[in-house]
Amino acid sequence: MRAYALLGGPENVWPADIQKRLNKEKKVGSLLIGVDRGSLLLEEMGLVPDLAIGDFDSLKPEELSKIEANVHDIRYSNPIKDWTDSELMIRAAFIDYHVDQLTILGATGGRIDHFLVNLFMLLNPAVRCYAEKISLVDCQNKIIFLDHGQHLVQQQGEYPYFGVACLEKTENLNILDARYELHGFSTAYPRIFASNEFKKGNNRFHLNLSSGMAAVIFSKDINRFHNIYDENV
Amino acid sequence: MRAYALLGGPENVWPADIQKRLNKEKKVGSLLIGVDRGSLLLEEMGLVPDLAIGDFDSLKPEELSKIEANVHDIRYSNPIKDWTDSELMIRAAFIDYHVDQLTILGATGGRIDHFLVNLFMLLNPAVRCYAEKISLVDCQNKIIFLDHGQHLVQQQGEYPYFGVACLEKTENLNILDARYELHGFSTAYPRIFASNEFKKGNNRFHLNLSSGMAAVIFSKDINRFHNIYDENV
Repeated sequence: MRAYALLGGPENVWPADIQKRLNKEKKVGSLLIGVDRGSLLLEEMGLVPDLAIGDFDSLKPEELSKIEANVHDIRYSNPIKDWTDSELMIRAAFIDYHVDQLTILGATGGRIDHFLVNLFMLLNPAVRCYAEKISLVDCQNKIIFLDHGQHLVQQQGEYPYFGVACLEKTENLNILDARYELHGFSTAYPRIFASNEFKKGNNRFHLNLSSGMAAVIFSKDINRFHNIYDENV
Repeated sequence: MRAYALLGGPENVWPADIQKRLNKEKKVGSLLIGVDRGSLLLEEMGLVPDLAIGDFDSLKPEELSKIEANVHDIRYSNPIKDWTDSELMIRAAFIDYHVDQLTILGATGGRIDHFLVNLFMLLNPAVRCYAEKISLVDCQNKIIFLDHGQHLVQQQGEYPYFGVACLEKTENLNILDARYELHGFSTAYPRIFASNEFKKGNNRFHLNLSSGMAAVIFSKDINRFHNIYDENV
């Protein structure tokens, strides 16, 4: 089973087709999860979450009541706590609901402290074992996580670029069969190799590392600059 | 001397008052730096950069000509290179122009691989020694960097929240005299403690760490949700 979780990040960086996509996923039986304000945002798109997790302290009483009336599985977190709502959500999805893949939406944009919570949590041993089954997706980025080992990374249709980030101390990182190759790179601290591309005629590259956790960030430019720069002009 | 550098990040997350602020800074003699497309974006605000750095490969020939005609100090970087344009810019600002403080704008939003380049570069030994004099600023965040040692961190007027991120392996991190305290925290990988606040009546907190680099992310919520949630209603 696939799962889709919506966090409280700003709507202006959500994937453009989010409502259509989640409606379709709901119909084929995927699990929909709302994290804190994300639960309300799902309801406002006409989608009742299967699971809602959060302290809900940013919701008005009538907003929380709406969620409590509709959602079958609600889990109240403690606002002063060891685990974040997102970490609790990941554990609930994989341990209680046995999902195979989890796509997290609403994890980017806006407050950077919030975004870094969602990025760095994949290093936490409590959820790290699920990292390779998790992606963060917004309107122009898709982030996947690859633990140490050998990986064959497939191109994701709409994204022409990818960056490879070492999120922690990393040994012997190799990027092979891509436009820019990297051989035997080690680092004691986070580093990123941005703006790489797939080779022409080759829709995958090899990534391997002896230790550490890598994130691959697939990305595309969007048309924000078209008023000042349009290649078709 | 203060310096302001504009990178190529999307305009919709720039500080709202950027043009006014940079005009004012230009008048008092601060250094204005354009990094790659940021050079053009400055020109389009009527601000000629004192220094422009980049490979400029995303600019049309007439756009580059405009920069070449106006900017006194232009440095052409190699697109396949060891240092990023931002790293070259930091070194030029501190080594060649002897600036005291550098505010980097246009470093956030949009492509996450680009943002992580700008965040993680402060760990690179080539620029790390300048990290405490650098901030990244957008419409709702200000990020400062604090190397190991003792720090008294002042509240920044417009930001009610702060998060403290360990950007790398960190030993004995303490957050004292803040709403949520932390004592003797060590980690082998990046972690962040988000959504902290200053204590009432106290506009500063103590942060110290024995090893590692911390980022303090000051942040505020903005009114994206006012259509669905307005505290004044």
